[in-house]
Amino acid sequence: MRLRGRKGIRETIERQTDLIVLDPQNWKGRWAERFGNDKPIHVELGMGKGKFISEMSVLHPEWNFIGVDMYDELIRRAGDKARAAAGREDGGAPDNLALALFNIERIEDMFAEGELRRIYLNFSDPWPKKKHARRRLTHPAFLAKYARMLDRYGEIHFKTDSRSLFEFSLNAFADMNIRLRNISLDLHKDGPAPDNVMTEYETKFAGQDMPIHRLEAVIGEDALAEHVDRLKRQGVTS
Amino acid sequence: MRLRGRKGIRETIERQTDLIVLDPQNWKGRWAERFGNDKPIHVELGMGKGKFISEMSVLHPEWNFIGVDMYDELIRRAGDKARAAAGREDGGAPDNLALALFNIERIEDMFAEGELRRIYLNFSDPWPKKKHARRRLTHPAFLAKYARMLDRYGEIHFKTDSRSLFEFSLNAFADMNIRLRNISLDLHKDGPAPDNVMTEYETKFAGQDMPIHRLEAVIGEDALAEHVDRLKRQGVTS
Ligand SMILES: C[S@@+](CC[C@H](N)C(=O)[O-])C[C@H]1O[C@@H](n2cnc3c(N)ncnc32)[C@H](O)[C@@H]1O
Ligand SMILES: C[S@@+](CC[C@H](N)C(=O)[O-])C[C@H]1O[C@@H](n2cnc3c(N)ncnc32)[C@H](O)[C@@H]1O
Repeated sequence: MRLRGRKGIRETIERQTDLIVLDPQNWKGRWAERFGNDKPIHVELGMGKGKFISEMSVLHPEWNFIGVDMYDELIRRAGDKARAAAGREDGGAPDNLALALFNIERIEDMFAEGELRRIYLNFSDPWPKKKHARRRLTHPAFLAKYARMLDRYGEIHFKTDSRSLFEFSLNAFADMNIRLRNISLDLHKDGPAPDNVMTEYETKFAGQDMPIHRLEAVIGEDALAEHVDRLKRQGVTS
Repeated sequence: MRLRGRKGIRETIERQTDLIVLDPQNWKGRWAERFGNDKPIHVELGMGKGKFISEMSVLHPEWNFIGVDMYDELIRRAGDKARAAAGREDGGAPDNLALALFNIERIEDMFAEGELRRIYLNFSDPWPKKKHARRRLTHPAFLAKYARMLDRYGEIHFKTDSRSLFEFSLNAFADMNIRLRNISLDLHKDGPAPDNVMTEYETKFAGQDMPIHRLEAVIGEDALAEHVDRLKRQGVTS
């Protein structure tokens, strides 16, 4: 077996210009142009090996997807997974998917105001030490950035095995007065959750019977209005 | 040992007119009169054997306390505990405490609009079956009643061992757009929580290393304004 070094990986991902974006900041405000259409854009921040984003892009041709991670090797593996998920004879990738190499710390350089419909945070690093709280992807400083990048129907979907990160996140959303819904403290309690696409980490932790936490944050004003209308029709609120 | 029957218990609690209230609906809108002062009133719904409410009443002479439960025997035991906690030579009870025999299903018959400052829900029955959801003390129908009974500084403090009840409650508060704060998914993680008075159930479950969930709901408009001001000064929200 030939081992691929750092340079080999770099060359492999550089070649895949149909799928992999190494200069995503250059597409800020122009992602619709890159996809060649105006479908709503869903982004996963910290996609890892790419199972979730690949499967989502195949299940939902009505949306565009961008997976973000900062490691060459993960982008390469996600690329392989995306092509396999597409199942095309020519080895092509799903044409509603892009994989972007980028550091989420500067996510505001990658997307313009209102450019996104949905952000997925799946099993984000918990950063358990208090002195690292600002690195947690649900820190209020990140939530403020996400809110700017999301459109009028914008939502954040978050899942994690980490009780402490989920606790931190519930407080962060509450402090920022962001409306939550479909909060779950044990997503797989009653067997596979409907419509839930599992990530790599989720498969591992759910297999160990660890409870998975999940929530949806309703950010966009039209998303919020629709949500409140639905609750009113159900008689839950007035 | 002489066993006390149902009738004996009844007589024991009937005698304690200084502490135990068997006709609490007759004090609706007049609790300040009963206490003889205008101190804010804190109520525990489902106090059980009364450890929490007894200790709170001794720790906080600046507030009045009412413990509610629907069983004669629990009211009797809570009465004993309250007198012991007061530690008075004459066997008197804390004069800022009342124990009320009442069914919480009709709690609106016990308190007038804005009569309460704080409601404690401690280890409320989880009613795990979906068909019993309306009996859960954090069901939106109950929350709506509580909101009416609470004053401009009103809050609800809720703790439970039950993950499923806490999950249900987070969604109920979210659906009713009630602001939460100090959410904890494992209250005793770092040892005894400061200012936390343990209940009987809490002592039992925390001793078994089960995570205790807790939240505070900010209901009253002045409580909410103060909370938001505090967050703004901390720079968390704008
Ligand atoms: C715990 S993994 C979860 C992966 C995947 N979402 C899953 O659920 O299986 C977190 C991922 O986030 C990525 N990540 C963490 N911080 C990042 C940052 N600042 N910028 C880009 N990616 C980051 C890591 O490289 C890693 O792949
Ligand atoms: C699980 S125990 C918790 C007792 C105590 N708060 C503690 O934490 O140790 C629940 C209590 O709520 C009381 N309770 C439940 N439903 C009630 C109702 N509808 N009216 C009055 N009390 C009720 C029960 O009698 C019981 O004492």
